[in-house]
Amino acid sequence: MTKPFKRILFTGAAGNLGRRLRERLHEFADIVRLSDVADFGPAAPHEEIVLCDLGDRDAVMRMCEGVDAILHFGGISTEEEWAPIMQANILGMVNLYEAVHKLGIRRVVFASTNHTMGMYKTTDLVDATMPPRADGYYGVSKVFGETLSRYYWDRFGVETVCIRIGYCWPEATNYRQLVTWLSLDDLVQLLHRSLTTPRVGHTITFGISDNEGRWWDDRHAAFLRYKPKDSSEQFADKLPAEVQYPPADDIATFYQGGVFLHNGPKYRP
Amino acid sequence: MTKPFKRILFTGAAGNLGRRLRERLHEFADIVRLSDVADFGPAAPHEEIVLCDLGDRDAVMRMCEGVDAILHFGGISTEEEWAPIMQANILGMVNLYEAVHKLGIRRVVFASTNHTMGMYKTTDLVDATMPPRADGYYGVSKVFGETLSRYYWDRFGVETVCIRIGYCWPEATNYRQLVTWLSLDDLVQLLHRSLTTPRVGHTITFGISDNEGRWWDDRHAAFLRYKPKDSSEQFADKLPAEVQYPPADDIATFYQGGVFLHNGPKYRP
Amino acid sequence: MTKPFKRILFTGAAGNLGRRLRERLHEFADIVRLSDVADFGPAAPHEEIVLCDLGDRDAVMRMCEGVDAILHFGGISTEEEWAPIMQANILGMVNLYEAVHKLGIRRVVFASTNHTMGMYKTTDLVDATMPPRADGYYGVSKVFGETLSRYYWDRFGVETVCIRIGYCWPEATNYRQLVTWLSLDDLVQLLHRSLTTPRVGHTITFGISDNEGRWWDDRHAAFLRYKPKDSSEQFADKLPAEVQYPPADDIATFYQGGVFLHNGPKYRP
Amino acid sequence: MTKPFKRILFTGAAGNLGRRLRERLHEFADIVRLSDVADFGPAAPHEEIVLCDLGDRDAVMRMCEGVDAILHFGGISTEEEWAPIMQANILGMVNLYEAVHKLGIRRVVFASTNHTMGMYKTTDLVDATMPPRADGYYGVSKVFGETLSRYYWDRFGVETVCIRIGYCWPEATNYRQLVTWLSLDDLVQLLHRSLTTPRVGHTITFGISDNEGRWWDDRHAAFLRYKPKDSSEQFADKLPAEVQYPPADDIATFYQGGVFLHNGPKYRP
Amino acid sequence: MTKPFKRILFTGAAGNLGRRLRERLHEFADIVRLSDVADFGPAAPHEEIVLCDLGDRDAVMRMCEGVDAILHFGGISTEEEWAPIMQANILGMVNLYEAVHKLGIRRVVFASTNHTMGMYKTTDLVDATMPPRADGYYGVSKVFGETLSRYYWDRFGVETVCIRIGYCWPEATNYRQLVTWLSLDDLVQLLHRSLTTPRVGHTITFGISDNEGRWWDDRHAAFLRYKPKDSSEQFADKLPAEVQYPPADDIATFYQGGVFLHNGPKYRP
Amino acid sequence: MTKPFKRILFTGAAGNLGRRLRERLHEFADIVRLSDVADFGPAAPHEEIVLCDLGDRDAVMRMCEGVDAILHFGGISTEEEWAPIMQANILGMVNLYEAVHKLGIRRVVFASTNHTMGMYKTTDLVDATMPPRADGYYGVSKVFGETLSRYYWDRFGVETVCIRIGYCWPEATNYRQLVTWLSLDDLVQLLHRSLTTPRVGHTITFGISDNEGRWWDDRHAAFLRYKPKDSSEQFADKLPAEVQYPPADDIATFYQGGVFLHNGPKYRP
Repeated sequence: MTKPFKRILFTGAAGNLGRRLRERLHEFADIVRLSDVADFGPAAPHEEIVLCDLGDRDAVMRMCEGVDAILHFGGISTEEEWAPIMQANILGMVNLYEAVHKLGIRRVVFASTNHTMGMYKTTDLVDATMPPRADGYYGVSKVFGETLSRYYWDRFGVETVCIRIGYCWPEATNYRQLVTWLSLDDLVQLLHRSLTTPRVGHTITFGISDNEGRWWDDRHAAFLRYKPKDSSEQFADKLPAEVQYPPADDIATFYQGGVFLHNGPKYRP
Repeated sequence: MTKPFKRILFTGAAGNLGRRLRERLHEFADIVRLSDVADFGPAAPHEEIVLCDLGDRDAVMRMCEGVDAILHFGGISTEEEWAPIMQANILGMVNLYEAVHKLGIRRVVFASTNHTMGMYKTTDLVDATMPPRADGYYGVSKVFGETLSRYYWDRFGVETVCIRIGYCWPEATNYRQLVTWLSLDDLVQLLHRSLTTPRVGHTITFGISDNEGRWWDDRHAAFLRYKPKDSSEQFADKLPAEVQYPPADDIATFYQGGVFLHNGPKYRP
Repeated sequence: MTKPFKRILFTGAAGNLGRRLRERLHEFADIVRLSDVADFGPAAPHEEIVLCDLGDRDAVMRMCEGVDAILHFGGISTEEEWAPIMQANILGMVNLYEAVHKLGIRRVVFASTNHTMGMYKTTDLVDATMPPRADGYYGVSKVFGETLSRYYWDRFGVETVCIRIGYCWPEATNYRQLVTWLSLDDLVQLLHRSLTTPRVGHTITFGISDNEGRWWDDRHAAFLRYKPKDSSEQFADKLPAEVQYPPADDIATFYQGGVFLHNGPKYRP
Repeated sequence: MTKPFKRILFTGAAGNLGRRLRERLHEFADIVRLSDVADFGPAAPHEEIVLCDLGDRDAVMRMCEGVDAILHFGGISTEEEWAPIMQANILGMVNLYEAVHKLGIRRVVFASTNHTMGMYKTTDLVDATMPPRADGYYGVSKVFGETLSRYYWDRFGVETVCIRIGYCWPEATNYRQLVTWLSLDDLVQLLHRSLTTPRVGHTITFGISDNEGRWWDDRHAAFLRYKPKDSSEQFADKLPAEVQYPPADDIATFYQGGVFLHNGPKYRP
Repeated sequence: MTKPFKRILFTGAAGNLGRRLRERLHEFADIVRLSDVADFGPAAPHEEIVLCDLGDRDAVMRMCEGVDAILHFGGISTEEEWAPIMQANILGMVNLYEAVHKLGIRRVVFASTNHTMGMYKTTDLVDATMPPRADGYYGVSKVFGETLSRYYWDRFGVETVCIRIGYCWPEATNYRQLVTWLSLDDLVQLLHRSLTTPRVGHTITFGISDNEGRWWDDRHAAFLRYKPKDSSEQFADKLPAEVQYPPADDIATFYQGGVFLHNGPKYRP
Repeated sequence: MTKPFKRILFTGAAGNLGRRLRERLHEFADIVRLSDVADFGPAAPHEEIVLCDLGDRDAVMRMCEGVDAILHFGGISTEEEWAPIMQANILGMVNLYEAVHKLGIRRVVFASTNHTMGMYKTTDLVDATMPPRADGYYGVSKVFGETLSRYYWDRFGVETVCIRIGYCWPEATNYRQLVTWLSLDDLVQLLHRSLTTPRVGHTITFGISDNEGRWWDDRHAAFLRYKPKDSSEQFADKLPAEVQYPPADDIATFYQGGVFLHNGPKYRP
């Protein structure tokens, strides 16, 4: 069967999302090149595995050679001390786009995060034209990625879809997760459409399923033809019926970033 | 079965909406305190009844004691002379929020009305950030309620959801009602979500079902997770097929407020 | 069975859309007056046929006499030299609205086109308040029609719905058509609602089906109660799976107007 | 010398602004009718004095008879208990516009206040299309006045200019006053232009001088041709040079309303 | 002395503005080519004169040969019957831009008009992103010119500054003229900056002096560095002091187009 | 004479702006602590000198101890290879705000740059709510600084004024510099007001003088009371009169970033 691409690169293959997505990536390309910083086992027949520290410029260049498109899920995806975040998410992005630019790769799908806007309130409606409001070092580093990839589009025509991924775990267990939940199937669809739409320019879109309740207005990315099939409503009945209004100073319910607000910044002692 | 609250207060229990909603309120709390200005019969086992003139400050304070949340449907809901509207909808709101503030009640759901924006045209799309355009004394008094409750949120953190209720009767019989119709089930859902969403701040939302045709854009309240299940389309076939364009000076079809525009202001003779 | 109108006029009856719509027009009126510039066969029993050059002021006046409403699909609908476009789409519109004004006809549905905004990018989201960006002589002439009809509303109260029609052919065969496709049934519904909504003022709406993927945001015309039932998704599977990113200088994929950008302006040699 | 009007009415003549403006009002009309609730001395030759409780409907009607335009500065202009505010600023406005409507008076200039938006932050820029954010009972009552007068314009064509007056005292003595200061001369100019511009519809404008530093963007009222001649900069040098950043919880510097936030609401003990 | 250009073309040289501007055009170029439809006398030493009917394609092509930039003031500038407007302002523009395109001329300054937006109210603030609202055939034809020139920018990179010229006569004699007045000196400055700014793309700007009172917000053209030196305030004192509010149905004071609203459309008898 | 502060810190004292500003800093504080990475000579009596590599966390902490406010001009201010930019502008900012946070310093004035928005066109009007569009590594690193400081305001209440400084050299010599020029006196005023305004939250403002011609709309920072006294117009006459339209592909005139677009990104060979 004909597949969209010959070879795509997926970075961050050993991460949480990487492990769950791995079995679906063959839908996109004949050869799936998987990458992460440390060994994560053997390749399947249609796979290639490249170990690569994103902070290593030459290694990143080698990792990118010969691919048609990149799904960039690599780097750090939790609140951490600054040093490793800078290495993977700042320097890593700089290295990646230098490679993309030099090698003439046309498109990247970048795993950004809702924590780029975690300091908006849970009563706000955010769209892609509004300024980011990061909620920690991690969120700040992802805003950097969006800024850098925008530059490569404006200046050099490299196309990027930045997906601000919501809560992508099997089950939603509280109000925040109900609103931000993303099913794996819907993520796969969104990746597919981000890769295959003829033109995407530089686009910021929100990775959520068809949940009731919205914090994010995705209309500016409507051209992607993403139409989620799942909804978090399946989990709504399992939430406790009883209402306890959160304390007036509970920032984890006041801001979209939730508990991430309590995690950062992680200063060295 | 666990219910969201221990005790809620519903004002305006003898009104049109109050009578229809009464049998559904037990879903929200173990004890439903019902209130209106004049006697409206005995309480059911899970109910408490408090007769209260909203213009009576002390009575309002007593009415609010011990409740977890308030559904404020009391006051006058038709075009009337100014004196009774001021007593119930202006002074009544002031008294209510003084009580809410002093008693530390955290949340109110306020039955506002589409007549706060009745002077917009039927070709306009209105959202919650646009200035109100009341269509009579009644509408003006409800804008006052929205203004006052906004102040109590901005200054003191009292949360209010203002629902600009559409046409909430069993059947839609003309174009205006097709667009503004709200089913009782959908209203119950909207009340439930307004009461149970962890944070609502001060929110203006529009009480309509999933009708085809929209005058109001509710995206700023999307976080409430309100998803109407009914639609006025069931009534569309009963409307006359023949089209008679309304006269060019027929304000009741030109403005969203409809026939309310002909009713006010009611001046004393 | 009662029909919405006694007599409507449909111009452009011999055109592509005219021929496909003709059998559906009896739903709208007892008598359907069909018009085009050259002979297109005999009338059915409920039909009247008027041959009319839109550039002929007196003929246009006679064509419009006695009708309740007009569906104006006449004129040139492809990129052409300027002379015939000016005759049919510029002078024709001026003649039509003079007749409409003098005869007191209350409403026109005007077949505008997506080529009024073809110079927006395929990653843009366009709504009816944004400035037109025509992609050729044809698009420019349709912007003229929207401007002129706006004037007749602002100044004289003549109501017009301008439908920026998408790709209205039986099948969508590429990405652009997937996004812009309009089924005939959905067009008929949109015409019906444009004709029968009590008030429309001057409205610009987008003629597309319920496709996944949107370039156009139709919320300002939501009051029309148009709800498309078809979707281009039925054709998506037939598109080639393999992705070849278009060359960086391929304007036909970069701008919404598609291949129309290559067609104009048609200068006389 | 010809004056703009034959007779104008100025309410609130015994108030702070009334007393300072009184000597300037003869510029506007041959006869200046002055009104307040209690005796404030004898009339000058070109003056008429009418004592009137704004809560007294019949008295308000008599007060308005025979005037060409009204400068409505009457009512309560400080934070107070609700009862007197409702009497003067709510019921008083209702009575006034009933009289204006019945008597066919064409225009009112309404002394609104910056406390209609006192809950915006001192780093916000507010314009007339943004929702009011009152900072107390007084501010809420003035929003009511703006809402009511808007209704009389939308529905009956009564024209009103609502001036959200800043700090109109001879001298500015702190940062807040530097930003909000209004000289008497500039106020007189603004009143003149509000009265004499041929059309004003319902307009909200901001009463400030040409200060450096702005919280309010008056561009929507630019048609009034108001051009202030004074500036608070004359007082800037008298402010202390030393900077003490206000405590993080000092709401009087965080919100535009300043110390008014500490004054309300005044609950009866 | 070095001048900005070698040769510029000024069309409409025999019109009102053309005659007044003629003596100033030598500031712009060594050679000023003047054009109009009928003979208007002999050329000065630095001038060339070309008689040209704008509706004549070949004549327009000849008129444009060898010029560096064009000031297009030609065509009809009053409300007229449609036929001559279409000939000069519609067909004339099409011919001009065909010539500009074929000859590779880089920039046009187009004399548009405030009557492209005459149906906005005199209390509205209009900016260049808002949809035009023409007030007659003349205004509609100028919107056409703006639309066509926009297309030539979007598609072919031809730069145009559209100046919506206000009331450009020596003296302002009523409120409307006070707001819309443009001095000849300021017009000359605006033409100079429109011609000499390195990049203008397609820009819509408003031709008014530094009047107190604004209907138009020119901020989107701020990059032009236009800074008017004159003001209509010099004429304000000559206006009558006495105020007579215009009748409620006086459209000439209600809409920005003023008396033009009474002039159109000019139907053939 | 009393000065605003006891001790302020100025970083980047050996840079171009640092050297020119140094003699003016005594206006702000009794003691001016100056810092740069390498030795730049002896301190004046009212000065302290601290040598500090911004990438050295402990050194940054020591540098910040005991200061009332910070003017952060340190780091790299030209297009460079990524490694030094990351060290000074990324890691340096992280270190600085950690120190600011831990030490309880209330306010920072951050020297950002117009190159955060250099990919906007020279015909665009940019305001502080629009997304940044960096034009190189340098611009990207300054967007990072704005993002990080926003986080410290949203989360911890640290106040920052980000000044996007224009062309701050003694003389403007081309169109781009005319538009972006900033005099030293005006910069000093802007620093003073940024330091002394009681509340600034997190503010982005544009550092330009009162030039004719604007690319940036500073209205959202109007509360700062910045009023430039100088204008680039003094240099306008020295520019060549003759106009040569730049080639259609000359990005340095098409984008606001000017020649910076040609400088980046600087890849290691």
